[in-house]
Amino acid sequence: MTELIEEVIVPAREARTIEVKKGQILEIVDLEGQQVGDVAVWMAADPNEYLSPSHTVSSLSKLVPEVGDPVLSNHRTPLLKILRDDVGRHDLVVPCCDPERYAIDYGEPDHGSCLASLEKALVDEGLDLPLRGEMCWNVFMNNVVEDGKIVTYEPPHAAGSLIAMEAQEDLVVALSACPQDISAVNAYNPTPMALRVSA
Amino acid sequence: MTELIEEVIVPAREARTIEVKKGQILEIVDLEGQQVGDVAVWMAADPNEYLSPSHTVSSLSKLVPEVGDPVLSNHRTPLLKILRDDVGRHDLVVPCCDPERYAIDYGEPDHGSCLASLEKALVDEGLDLPLRGEMCWNVFMNNVVEDGKIVTYEPPHAAGSLIAMEAQEDLVVALSACPQDISAVNAYNPTPMALRVSA
Repeated sequence: MTELIEEVIVPAREARTIEVKKGQILEIVDLEGQQVGDVAVWMAADPNEYLSPSHTVSSLSKLVPEVGDPVLSNHRTPLLKILRDDVGRHDLVVPCCDPERYAIDYGEPDHGSCLASLEKALVDEGLDLPLRGEMCWNVFMNNVVEDGKIVTYEPPHAAGSLIAMEAQEDLVVALSACPQDISAVNAYNPTPMALRVSA
Repeated sequence: MTELIEEVIVPAREARTIEVKKGQILEIVDLEGQQVGDVAVWMAADPNEYLSPSHTVSSLSKLVPEVGDPVLSNHRTPLLKILRDDVGRHDLVVPCCDPERYAIDYGEPDHGSCLASLEKALVDEGLDLPLRGEMCWNVFMNNVVEDGKIVTYEPPHAAGSLIAMEAQEDLVVALSACPQDISAVNAYNPTPMALRVSA
C-alpha cells in the first residue's frame, strides 16, 4: 500500500505544479472523464533537463509509451516509469495548445491555452523554469495517425481514469487541464484534473 | 529562371550554415543519394523563434509536410514554403541524433552526432543561437509509423535529390549531414550534402 503525500486539484482550464521525489509515485487523474492534460516535467537539480516527448518517441521507437516504459528527458534520462495506465491513449507528437493555435487556426485570439495556463502557474508559484510548447506531453489525448494525417477523436475514458508513474529522479511537474473546447480534444467540455504524489 | 546566390557544401558527418532572405529559394540537396539531413532554422530577427517540427505537424495535422505546405515556427509563423520535393519522405517526430543516443542505445559514446555537428558549426561560424535536438527537422529520413512503431528504412532517393523551399522570413539555416552509420538512416554510408540559396 502506498500513502498519499499530496494532492493538488487542477481546476478546469487552469494549471498547477507539484514536486515529486525519486521513488515516489505520481498520478495524473482525470476527475470527471474525457479530459486531456498537458504535462511538463523538469529535473529539480537542473531545469534545463526536462521531459522531451520527441526524445521519448525516438528511444522507444513508438508513438505512445506503454506500461513498463520510461518517459525520457532531452538527455534521454529516464524521468518517470509508467506503472499503470487506465487510458492508453496519449499524444507525444504535437505541442500543447498555445495562443497562436487559437488565433490562427480557430480565429479566437483571446482563448485560453495550455501554454498560457502553464506559464501562469509557474509565475503564481514562483518557479523560474524554461517552458516551451514542444516540451509538453499531451496525456490522454486521443490523437490517431490515419494515412499520415493526425486525427483527433473525443477521448472515451471514464471519470477517475489515471496514469501512475514512478519518479526516477527528483522532479517538478506541471499539469494543465486543457481548455480546448472548440475541437474534440476534451469532448467539448473542459473539466478539472488532479495531481497526486504517494510513497 | 532563378540565379544561384550561394552554395555551401556540407561534408559528410559535418554541419554548415547559410543565410536566406525572405523571398529567396533554399535548396537542401543530397549530392550522392540515400543521405538524411538535420535542419535547424532561426528567424534572423529573433532566434528565439525557430522552426518547430511539432508545431508544423500540429497545424498541418499531418506527419509529413508536402509541396505547397508551410513549415512553421514555434509561434506558428510560416518560415518556409515547400516548392519542390524530390523525396517526399521526412521525419518531424524524433529529434536529431545526439551523443546520448549513441552512448545509451548503441554503446558508442564517442560517435559523432547531428547535435554535436550543429553545435560545432554554430561555434565555428560565430553564431550564438539556441539549439536543441527537438528543433531539428530530419529531412529525407525514411521513418514510417507501422502499428504505432517508428520503423527506419534505408532512404531510396537518388543522387541530386533535393527539396526547394521559399523563405517567408529572413532566416539562418543550419544543416547537418547525418553521421548515423549504425542503423539504416543513411543506408550505412554517410555522404555530403549541399545548401543552395537562389533568387
